[in-house]
Amino acid sequence: MVLKLYFDLFSQPARSLYIFLKLAKIPFEECRVNLGKGEHLTKEFAETKSKIQKIPFIHHGDFRLNESIGIVRYLSREYSIADHWYPKDSKKQAKVDEFLEWNHLNIRLNCSSYFLVKWLMPLKNGKQPSEEECKNLTRRMEKSLEDFERIFLSNERFLFGNSVSYADVHAACEIEQTRMAGYDVRDHFPKIKTWIESVRSECNPVYDQAHKFVNMMAEGNEKQLNSKL
Amino acid sequence: MVLKLYFDLFSQPARSLYIFLKLAKIPFEECRVNLGKGEHLTKEFAETKSKIQKIPFIHHGDFRLNESIGIVRYLSREYSIADHWYPKDSKKQAKVDEFLEWNHLNIRLNCSSYFLVKWLMPLKNGKQPSEEECKNLTRRMEKSLEDFERIFLSNERFLFGNSVSYADVHAACEIEQTRMAGYDVRDHFPKIKTWIESVRSECNPVYDQAHKFVNMMAEGNEKQLNSKL
Repeated sequence: MVLKLYFDLFSQPARSLYIFLKLAKIPFEECRVNLGKGEHLTKEFAETKSKIQKIPFIHHGDFRLNESIGIVRYLSREYSIADHWYPKDSKKQAKVDEFLEWNHLNIRLNCSSYFLVKWLMPLKNGKQPSEEECKNLTRRMEKSLEDFERIFLSNERFLFGNSVSYADVHAACEIEQTRMAGYDVRDHFPKIKTWIESVRSECNPVYDQAHKFVNMMAEGNEKQLNSKL
Repeated sequence: MVLKLYFDLFSQPARSLYIFLKLAKIPFEECRVNLGKGEHLTKEFAETKSKIQKIPFIHHGDFRLNESIGIVRYLSREYSIADHWYPKDSKKQAKVDEFLEWNHLNIRLNCSSYFLVKWLMPLKNGKQPSEEECKNLTRRMEKSLEDFERIFLSNERFLFGNSVSYADVHAACEIEQTRMAGYDVRDHFPKIKTWIESVRSECNPVYDQAHKFVNMMAEGNEKQLNSKL
């Protein structure tokens, strides 16, 4: 049965799903959706591709599924993949799930809000956020990152021991996004820096391929910043 | 092995997990945590009960687990429960997961933000939100509820056919919370009204028991509103 992945590497969960599929060696057909052009917003797209109109999603034969985490769980049942990506052991799986569920209203919400308000919205409608808004966004994001370090990062190489899991990739892709808005988490959280570099090194060269656009934009920001100094 | 549920029925996911445990006939020990008194915020609580310091969570023997959705997934593997609560069939389970994952940044985020800013924060620090803030909160919440109706509710009795699932209970408990802040979703979304009444009727008397405090506060609001008219 053909597996089609609909994605745009501009999106954090699309990148994590793309990296997972490549490294877990699940064969798939690449179906690019250009978010910038709003390709996902038409009525035709909703009818023929995905009613939720968000990426990433998959078509697996006739079966359509949205939401990266749900997709990883589904594919881990449908394909034979290395156990470390999403463990079959009930308690180990539960701990991966605990993190992935916690993540939504913490790193996911607060890093992407920072990115949206500081980078995407000014680009779209020319409106810069106020100083107070920026302060609040930074405060909330840093609270989530502190919690992430304190609660979930130990002295082990990855979130759940010495092997990378989908949870590592999922969180790393969210955290990378803020670099486009000029905030490199590595500069502020040394424990996250060590961990994210392990994830990157374990998942390379696919990790860097998936972050090509993010890196390009982040370098642009750095040059902009340097030219101001 | 003893299963302990740490909860406060003031919390939406605590209510949904409580209802699920009761109706799926999973025996558990009730461990109440008083959120209002901040019982979960002490260092001792973090060390002996839960590092995440949020409820609901479980202790299953020595195993500790947070996050209601992860807990339901874990318990559905550990106990023999009726399949409709969280189906074993791969595709059916994937669709339940899709909804539960989508829900975080939609109904969960936007209904609870409305409740927090309009009800809880004024109670805690006496600060009323501005008119513009209320308008934005309502707009975002109603967008999520419209999406919920359009994407997920069909003409069937529940989200996934004629049998109730944990996803129904989880969403219903989030939606009920806004009544405390004076917004009854039933008055604005007829399709949601029909569905939520089915969930309530299917899960009663446990549903009403779990919502005793919510109902009391909502009635208080209605009286307040009526006294103003």
